[in-house]
Amino acid sequence: MPRRSATDVADSRHLAVQAAIDIASVEGLEGLTIGRLATDLGMSKSGLIGRFGDKETLQRAVLRAAIDRFSKHVWEPSSTTPPGRAQLTAIVDAWIDHLRDGVFPGGCFVTTASVEYDARDGALHDDVAEAVRRWLAILEHNARIAQSAGDLPADRDPADVALELHSLASGGSVAARITGDPTALERIRRAMHRATGADPSTQNG
Amino acid sequence: MPRRSATDVADSRHLAVQAAIDIASVEGLEGLTIGRLATDLGMSKSGLIGRFGDKETLQRAVLRAAIDRFSKHVWEPSSTTPPGRAQLTAIVDAWIDHLRDGVFPGGCFVTTASVEYDARDGALHDDVAEAVRRWLAILEHNARIAQSAGDLPADRDPADVALELHSLASGGSVAARITGDPTALERIRRAMHRATGADPSTQNG
Repeated sequence: MPRRSATDVADSRHLAVQAAIDIASVEGLEGLTIGRLATDLGMSKSGLIGRFGDKETLQRAVLRAAIDRFSKHVWEPSSTTPPGRAQLTAIVDAWIDHLRDGVFPGGCFVTTASVEYDARDGALHDDVAEAVRRWLAILEHNARIAQSAGDLPADRDPADVALELHSLASGGSVAARITGDPTALERIRRAMHRATGADPSTQNG
Repeated sequence: MPRRSATDVADSRHLAVQAAIDIASVEGLEGLTIGRLATDLGMSKSGLIGRFGDKETLQRAVLRAAIDRFSKHVWEPSSTTPPGRAQLTAIVDAWIDHLRDGVFPGGCFVTTASVEYDARDGALHDDVAEAVRRWLAILEHNARIAQSAGDLPADRDPADVALELHSLASGGSVAARITGDPTALERIRRAMHRATGADPSTQNG
């Protein structure tokens, strides 16, 4: 058998991780097994283990890649907008758009992972917690700048705004999916814009 | 073996369901198996099957009982308060209190169930969706009365207020648990009071 190039291996690893994100988005990271993924990809279990190592190493790689996918859709498009109210507004719109567009087929990836790992100890719990804290810090940083610029009332705590935005998107996406209400995500968009102090009537949606 | 009275059977069924709620709150309703529950209760699998029937019947009974537990802690204490802003305020405080007090050891029961069943068809999906819709309708009804009384701006959609409250409690409880931030639930309480149009500085917490 000819030896596969490093590029081939990297490509097949990338494809495997992307497929695994879609499975884990619906079934949870705990629903992700080497056997299931090997079947879905038409690969051997030993080939997958060679690329990833054990199940936890695979799960952590999939979580990292899911966070990269979220960043690419929600954070990066807004990263050229000036920090503060304008960037928060861009983040909110991209956040709701990625939920509406089904970037993750099972809804908000980090919410599912948070529910899975909030009562467990270990590396996956710590990875998910760290991802949520990093995201809350980005939101809080923007809220603080918005407040300095007079775009947010002086008596709002920027950490409150950050947690409010995260909770609305997280809980709202779950409620939208379970009820099947087609108006829910736009209601959540309005609530998130209101949380940033923006007048919802001037926002799209 | 003496025949057990109907009361004994009802009591043991009640105890089994309450234990099952606590397990499912952490592990999910899908993590609930007749075998696991029999072991935890020191009962025979056949005895449990005799009381509940198959796994889905058990899961549906546990979901109903979990919703009853939620109602007892969050809805019933507020049910004697006049509908409108006052009842919404009472609901918000009882809702945050039940999360803080760990009424469900795994956090918000219906959020976990929503994440489990949002991508599945079947009776459990429908039961969870119906429970969320019923709760949203209660919140919306109160928001509408608050608006009629002038306690909520005329341009707020009562359905928006309902979804906002549900999303904040649901997403906020998940974020509080995964980050371990001891200030998170009080931040969410403030956000929920603000969503009802109440001045957060006049609320407790």
